Amino acid sequence: MSTETQNIIIQKIAKSKISEVDFSNLAFGSVFTDHMYVCDFKDGEWQTPTIKPYGPISIDPSAKVFHYGQAVFEGMKAYKAEDDSIWMFRPEENQKRINFSANRLQMPSFPKEMFFDGLETLLKLDRDWIQKGEGNSMYIRPFVIATESGVSASPSKEYKFMFILSPAQSYFKGGGSDVKVLFADKYSRSANGGVGAAKAAGNYAGQFYPTHLAQEQGYQQVVWTDANTHEFLEEAGVMNVFFRVGDTLLTAPTSDRILDGITRKSIIQVAQDMGISVEVRNVRVSEIVDAAKNGTLLEMFGAGTAAVINPIAGFGCKGEDYTLPKLENSYAMLLRKRITDIQTNKAEDKHGWRYKVKE
Amino acid sequence: MSTETQNIIIQKIAKSKISEVDFSNLAFGSVFTDHMYVCDFKDGEWQTPTIKPYGPISIDPSAKVFHYGQAVFEGMKAYKAEDDSIWMFRPEENQKRINFSANRLQMPSFPKEMFFDGLETLLKLDRDWIQKGEGNSMYIRPFVIATESGVSASPSKEYKFMFILSPAQSYFKGGGSDVKVLFADKYSRSANGGVGAAKAAGNYAGQFYPTHLAQEQGYQQVVWTDANTHEFLEEAGVMNVFFRVGDTLLTAPTSDRILDGITRKSIIQVAQDMGISVEVRNVRVSEIVDAAKNGTLLEMFGAGTAAVINPIAGFGCKGEDYTLPKLENSYAMLLRKRITDIQTNKAEDKHGWRYKVKE
Repeated sequence: MSTETQNIIIQKIAKSKISEVDFSNLAFGSVFTDHMYVCDFKDGEWQTPTIKPYGPISIDPSAKVFHYGQAVFEGMKAYKAEDDSIWMFRPEENQKRINFSANRLQMPSFPKEMFFDGLETLLKLDRDWIQKGEGNSMYIRPFVIATESGVSASPSKEYKFMFILSPAQSYFKGGGSDVKVLFADKYSRSANGGVGAAKAAGNYAGQFYPTHLAQEQGYQQVVWTDANTHEFLEEAGVMNVFFRVGDTLLTAPTSDRILDGITRKSIIQVAQDMGISVEVRNVRVSEIVDAAKNGTLLEMFGAGTAAVINPIAGFGCKGEDYTLPKLENSYAMLLRKRITDIQTNKAEDKHGWRYKVKE
Repeated sequence: MSTETQNIIIQKIAKSKISEVDFSNLAFGSVFTDHMYVCDFKDGEWQTPTIKPYGPISIDPSAKVFHYGQAVFEGMKAYKAEDDSIWMFRPEENQKRINFSANRLQMPSFPKEMFFDGLETLLKLDRDWIQKGEGNSMYIRPFVIATESGVSASPSKEYKFMFILSPAQSYFKGGGSDVKVLFADKYSRSANGGVGAAKAAGNYAGQFYPTHLAQEQGYQQVVWTDANTHEFLEEAGVMNVFFRVGDTLLTAPTSDRILDGITRKSIIQVAQDMGISVEVRNVRVSEIVDAAKNGTLLEMFGAGTAAVINPIAGFGCKGEDYTLPKLENSYAMLLRKRITDIQTNKAEDKHGWRYKVKE
């Protein structure tokens, strides 16, 4: 069946796959809902989008995404309230950032109205897949790929903008953090004047090998340092990073090397709202090592859409291993609770971050 | 019709498309031959490869190549001699390098024997597409992409290795060079400890926007400088770069930021064979600007598989524009002739660079 709504062609699935899904046992990002949204860019403009059954796309082997890496994405979440209304968290930030990322790779912007119209229509169509309850959410993956055929190294003239949806549970199943990170001292994530601030696909592939080496040493992730001196702590590749020294929270300023994380800036705001001292400034490897040695480094945590806040239990640096104390009432847990309470309508939304999907 | 040869399943096209192709008017990388080679990696190993009619592949929208950029490639050429034998130029170097690139992105190596067996079988099957004569060649694009489904940022467990073939004409249609380049002083291609030495798809996308800005100023390409100081000239993104100051040829050493170009190292060897002084060392922006000002900068050229040698007519640096002299018997033309003569069996192959496809 094909119908046209609000300039979107909608082809509904014959039979939902939802009964095959065990929502109590979801691996992150592995199960997708019944439908996906696709909008093609050609002849210099975005064409009429389609919502169709989720499934493989057909693409030429010479498509530029495979050869020249024009691919950007976002990560967002939607939540279902007790009254079945659907909510998102600061989605305008993701909408702006995917265009920032696209433009950095010489890809066209996707119009804000089409972004929200498409995403909300898709969320409502697959609304049964959004589970209520603590920790449940719908992970939303907007992405854009270059689809023009041809193996010459120039920007594509054709693109696909897509939304795919993956139901998610909380990263936290109780208990403390076992995550240990390694401070980078050889490999790097991004260059001054490079694409580190963009959510560009290529930024991730480059991290896998150094992360693999870290994993062989018993660390789960790498905290990247500046490529030039390795003296300053930047971000963890899939998360921004915060350090608590004494009662003060430290995090690096954004730059053309560091992603302007939405969870990151929400944490900074919420921490300030809660009266926690926050310093956004260059953070030296040496000061964090010193703080760990003298006992003032109380916490480290990552911040990102998928986990919201991911506590870090310890770190490795230049062959030494450092373990952080286990705290009751950690900033990580306080901030995570406050942000997830705002996201799920259990706390006052004084900054207007919650966004209700239009019925 | 499906047959199995040397562990490759071969599905031949019903009717060749070759009669539709105007070989005298080929845009680089836009026309592909009748067949393509595909080998899937899953369950920890490369499966039986297939040669099949060239056409779209079907791939899940959550495939990791679209989101995390695990994609590497090579560029190679094959030539047809007067006796219809098919030749390649230093193909073992490409075979080694695609594995180097893949490993840097935590992707599996592709076995050397399968690489040559697959490529030679494909070249012979599509041999009618390889045109004889000056400047004609078959551009070969080996590439590997991550195909596992799932939007979690970790290395894919499934890949596709492919060869696609595109007939090519000489870049040079007579006349001099109009290529002007801009020395980068803000944007960067790669970081120390990054993936610049790999032929990773993401390295190219990041260059398109700064190149677009350069094009708006009248330059065709950017010569990248080191990300830290912008004081040293590195490479042009799709080419390595050489500078002739007086009678000496200068080029930057390879590093983890600079691709170890096969044409680059062939030029260094051939220049030395011809008695030309070559210095492989860091090349300062300031010395090239000074040499341009005092008239000792005689040539600049790019070196890569597609164009072999691409003369550069001038450059821009910090708002100033510099024009190079037009020379008879330039190093660029001497070296290009020598290398293409070796490639096409018109000059002695003293280093054993030519590789004959087995009949």
